[in-house]
Amino acid sequence: MAIATGIVGAAGFAGIELTRLALRHPDLELSVVTSNELAGTPVSAEYPGFLGATDLVFASHDDPALDECDLVFLAVPHTAALAMAPRFVERGAVVVDLSADFRLKDPGVYERWYATPHTQTDLLARAAFGLPELFGDDLARAAEDRRAGCGALVGCAGCYPTATSLAAAPAVRAGIVAKGAPVVVDAISGVTGAGKKATSRTHFCFADENLEAYGVATHRHTPEIEQILGLEGRLVFTPHLAPLNRGLLSTVNLPLAPDAPADAAEVVELYRSFYDDAPFVRVLDAGFMPKTSSVVGTNYAHVGVAVNEPARMLVAVCAIDNLAKGAAGQAVQCANRVWGLPEARGLEPIAVPV
Amino acid sequence: MAIATGIVGAAGFAGIELTRLALRHPDLELSVVTSNELAGTPVSAEYPGFLGATDLVFASHDDPALDECDLVFLAVPHTAALAMAPRFVERGAVVVDLSADFRLKDPGVYERWYATPHTQTDLLARAAFGLPELFGDDLARAAEDRRAGCGALVGCAGCYPTATSLAAAPAVRAGIVAKGAPVVVDAISGVTGAGKKATSRTHFCFADENLEAYGVATHRHTPEIEQILGLEGRLVFTPHLAPLNRGLLSTVNLPLAPDAPADAAEVVELYRSFYDDAPFVRVLDAGFMPKTSSVVGTNYAHVGVAVNEPARMLVAVCAIDNLAKGAAGQAVQCANRVWGLPEARGLEPIAVPV
Amino acid sequence: MAIATGIVGAAGFAGIELTRLALRHPDLELSVVTSNELAGTPVSAEYPGFLGATDLVFASHDDPALDECDLVFLAVPHTAALAMAPRFVERGAVVVDLSADFRLKDPGVYERWYATPHTQTDLLARAAFGLPELFGDDLARAAEDRRAGCGALVGCAGCYPTATSLAAAPAVRAGIVAKGAPVVVDAISGVTGAGKKATSRTHFCFADENLEAYGVATHRHTPEIEQILGLEGRLVFTPHLAPLNRGLLSTVNLPLAPDAPADAAEVVELYRSFYDDAPFVRVLDAGFMPKTSSVVGTNYAHVGVAVNEPARMLVAVCAIDNLAKGAAGQAVQCANRVWGLPEARGLEPIAVPV
Amino acid sequence: MAIATGIVGAAGFAGIELTRLALRHPDLELSVVTSNELAGTPVSAEYPGFLGATDLVFASHDDPALDECDLVFLAVPHTAALAMAPRFVERGAVVVDLSADFRLKDPGVYERWYATPHTQTDLLARAAFGLPELFGDDLARAAEDRRAGCGALVGCAGCYPTATSLAAAPAVRAGIVAKGAPVVVDAISGVTGAGKKATSRTHFCFADENLEAYGVATHRHTPEIEQILGLEGRLVFTPHLAPLNRGLLSTVNLPLAPDAPADAAEVVELYRSFYDDAPFVRVLDAGFMPKTSSVVGTNYAHVGVAVNEPARMLVAVCAIDNLAKGAAGQAVQCANRVWGLPEARGLEPIAVPV
Repeated sequence: MAIATGIVGAAGFAGIELTRLALRHPDLELSVVTSNELAGTPVSAEYPGFLGATDLVFASHDDPALDECDLVFLAVPHTAALAMAPRFVERGAVVVDLSADFRLKDPGVYERWYATPHTQTDLLARAAFGLPELFGDDLARAAEDRRAGCGALVGCAGCYPTATSLAAAPAVRAGIVAKGAPVVVDAISGVTGAGKKATSRTHFCFADENLEAYGVATHRHTPEIEQILGLEGRLVFTPHLAPLNRGLLSTVNLPLAPDAPADAAEVVELYRSFYDDAPFVRVLDAGFMPKTSSVVGTNYAHVGVAVNEPARMLVAVCAIDNLAKGAAGQAVQCANRVWGLPEARGLEPIAVPV
Repeated sequence: MAIATGIVGAAGFAGIELTRLALRHPDLELSVVTSNELAGTPVSAEYPGFLGATDLVFASHDDPALDECDLVFLAVPHTAALAMAPRFVERGAVVVDLSADFRLKDPGVYERWYATPHTQTDLLARAAFGLPELFGDDLARAAEDRRAGCGALVGCAGCYPTATSLAAAPAVRAGIVAKGAPVVVDAISGVTGAGKKATSRTHFCFADENLEAYGVATHRHTPEIEQILGLEGRLVFTPHLAPLNRGLLSTVNLPLAPDAPADAAEVVELYRSFYDDAPFVRVLDAGFMPKTSSVVGTNYAHVGVAVNEPARMLVAVCAIDNLAKGAAGQAVQCANRVWGLPEARGLEPIAVPV
Repeated sequence: MAIATGIVGAAGFAGIELTRLALRHPDLELSVVTSNELAGTPVSAEYPGFLGATDLVFASHDDPALDECDLVFLAVPHTAALAMAPRFVERGAVVVDLSADFRLKDPGVYERWYATPHTQTDLLARAAFGLPELFGDDLARAAEDRRAGCGALVGCAGCYPTATSLAAAPAVRAGIVAKGAPVVVDAISGVTGAGKKATSRTHFCFADENLEAYGVATHRHTPEIEQILGLEGRLVFTPHLAPLNRGLLSTVNLPLAPDAPADAAEVVELYRSFYDDAPFVRVLDAGFMPKTSSVVGTNYAHVGVAVNEPARMLVAVCAIDNLAKGAAGQAVQCANRVWGLPEARGLEPIAVPV
Repeated sequence: MAIATGIVGAAGFAGIELTRLALRHPDLELSVVTSNELAGTPVSAEYPGFLGATDLVFASHDDPALDECDLVFLAVPHTAALAMAPRFVERGAVVVDLSADFRLKDPGVYERWYATPHTQTDLLARAAFGLPELFGDDLARAAEDRRAGCGALVGCAGCYPTATSLAAAPAVRAGIVAKGAPVVVDAISGVTGAGKKATSRTHFCFADENLEAYGVATHRHTPEIEQILGLEGRLVFTPHLAPLNRGLLSTVNLPLAPDAPADAAEVVELYRSFYDDAPFVRVLDAGFMPKTSSVVGTNYAHVGVAVNEPARMLVAVCAIDNLAKGAAGQAVQCANRVWGLPEARGLEPIAVPV
């Protein structure tokens, strides 16, 4: 299969990782990558790791070659995708959007957190939520739409919501989490999560040898996680920044329901059964906790669980690569699903060991 | 004043930082540093940053010069301090112990977590808890004992307990934390926290570009934090390892009591008033969160607070240098108190800015 | 094609990278990986990035399954390969050795630098030098031997020799380097180059935020580089250690012959023509210098050149991944050549961009 | 003594380190720090490590308080110091300039490398070269001028020239370096050397896990090193960037004169005798090489030497902190000399050990 593919916003960190993945993917034919800022610059001039691997040159966002694509990835800032997505879907293409524009089901919530009205509520209603392990039905529906020629739109989950939800969902859906109690999520991300823009936050000398919390009680992934897990008003989410490039670890503290099991091994079984059909989620044996280095460069999520018995708290930890399973890898996984390809097609099987 | 000083276990990371601080301290006269493993090796051969600054050579732990010291720091592994401390206290010296041996007030709790009986319960009963901002009375009592010539023992708080308690204590002691609810603490440490021993955990290639949780539900600082804050059975503590040398960040999630203020600025005021006399704690303005890089190399603790209103959760974050305020700096601060010196004597006023 | 493959010494850093590459390679069938230290441990228990990708368990070095392999990689310490290689070659298998045992053509030089006599001088005489871009004839000969069923042995070039020689060879072979003058090579390596053993050198806290030179005037790669480039007694080689995992940069200072071109663009042309058929070497445009991050995880070498005109010095810089083109990737490339497979088979086309 | 002190350009990396050093210095009274970009911002708002240590607010460069200062440090970009220095010197103040404006003795060389004419050639002729170990007479003359009330100007050496010259000067001045032969210097710097400006070069995600050479054959420190060592047209200088904050290592390859000693221990003696009176230079025993981590945060330079006998090359390596001995520390050391204070006054005695 040769799926004509375009990437809008290919010069940012998620976009360029997507470019790499698309070039390696046996079924994608990447014909256009865009960046308004770098239009006219060869990809390999900006990212020399592509030297010899591609002659693609960044085009501008309005490049007509995008109109020939069957698959368009949008890796643009939120609100920009709102304006772009309809054009492609309407002519029957599949859009996989990595921005936040089609994640929040309630337009009012979107407006509250992103300070702009949602202008594409019809499309939003149709959008599949791009987190295949938890919203497989959405993607099945999108696959049908594609086959029917009506176009489809996938709004991929954010990086923190992906890791957090993969850690929490089996427990939440099994009903072993106490109702009403707050769920505390403390997550840590590498600096690629802060994006390509050179700022004092992303300056090596301020990020190196430093740890900090940010966006405390105000991070925009909060409503997304609440939506996925049904935790409205109960989520206490604090992201942290640590000095590494890629990697995201989410530590999720789930208060156990009165009758829930307090044995880690039993919880591991529950989780494994939940993820039985999910090729990208590995649940570790009780007593083990995931390392981000084990998944970097791949689309895998590693999940470990432990139980604090006196406090009746399930601590579930998930490690992902924020640019892979947290962004570009997941987008490819979603595209594979929409085209009925093997879910892992084109995605790296093993992380670099050191 | 010239206080004859010895450091037992000076070659480990806390011990060598203490050595550095003692050499710079205008009132300490460091006459002996010990390390059984490196006995006979000059300090500057093992740590070349001391070249030209000291001719001290590591002695063995049983070096008689220790018997001439008025102040003995113990930076040995837990259980080793149990056997060493009495000898010095009995002859009227002051012992400042950095191990865990004299922190837990209940010998049974000690035995449960450290898998060995506490053999010095009398001394334990006398021990001052070495966290000056919260247990100033203990240190005042130790100062009196010293003046009376009866010797004194300070069991310094651990690194995670120090940061966590400084973040939590003002709220807990003011009664604005809900009774009975679990308190979730997720903390992150640099690799110096894992000690000098070369292991796969401290290997550069495994620690670099990696994040992980460890000791989940089993870390030995758990009972210490519970003791300090009165949280028996309610603490959910998860430490994490991140790729930096020094720095520890503790994010403490405190459920607010029904009538507690939900305004961050109000909480800041409460915290500032609590730490009014504490030269080493800085409470940041509402809206700001601490960075570990701002305190590295110093004895400072920076504290920031935010409130998640829907979940009624106070999120308090504290940044320290795990080897300074979390170990060696705090030990010097305690010694300063016991001798009635200015609390900041010999301690660095400003962190290296980048 | 399904080449039965074994890796001896698979638990070290080069060995495990080789394991990863072999598992991804469409024509290799990895049936046995060995480690005396970890015999009985699943690969994925030691390196969790392999979870789900392989069920292989480390066997011991004398595992009989090795006798069924057509291709045996040796990733053992030097001198160990001396004893192992004959057994496999004699029965007609191909050995690709990553140690230093079959690199130095003169057994006397080997003995002088490795402090042990070379006990396999016949095999040494037959060994192909594993640096395909410069010793293609060697590999062609080994390929013939394989086809003839007589077994073959490739002694792969070391990491520093690979980067240094790729930077220097086009100039040296073109005769534009002054005869007799010293050639200064200063190279920098990431910490994976120091191996898996946990030592004070590889301890995170000593390697992080540190730069140092080591093995000055004594590093064992010196005679190997001299042999490749014909620089006996003229090489001044100083390796350095920097705080990163993978990546090796070699800066080679080549005094220009009197009639040599002093124009960088001209030198670039010469280099490009030299590497015309080499898929893994990219010569950058004049004015550009390579970054190790552009090649990490791949088998590529990026080379940049500049000319210091007043001093008549050609400065050629080469960036490689020390574990890939400097070890495991090159070993696979050599195996591909020996089997007549496309040279890049199984090797990653593009480095992770950030 | 209370020397009224101002720092112009205090918000950059060298400037803020100078601010820290000035605040700790018992004889300096820092009354004004300037930054046009951050005028009105408290120092502690931009650099939270200063919280509680100072209430200073950045003023603009034309703040009249500078006219009351006896000592003015200029930490502004080159060419800016040209315009500022005269105003202070003319009224009898001492200016210690960290820029490149008063380092190159030949205005023509300055113009060639900095692409702007030198407009203060009279002042340039008077300027002391700020590298106390090698140009002590210059500073003695400046001290006399200060006492005479005529003002004085010190043009501090750059970071690479400082480390390189400290490594090379004892050999060069002793005449053991071959005349006419090229001297190859390969140096490595941490990212603070690239300055505070957020660019793609200083972006964490591009600097982390990367090594590269830059400014090959074109770096502006080339003529400065040539001037200090008398190497016009013979220096081959290649700087490299590595992923750490502070630290600079210069590896200097000095071809030995025919009758020069080829024994490292003998060279060590020569170096030690040369630096006998220099409190900040430590020459390591033969067989040892310096680590930047041993000097970070201090004004020390550690020097190691080795001899490559076959190639008759002396390899001298120097480690400094680029912001300390390479910038702010050296500036304070120069001021101490000009005021006749103990040379190490206010400068940290021991590097943080890990």
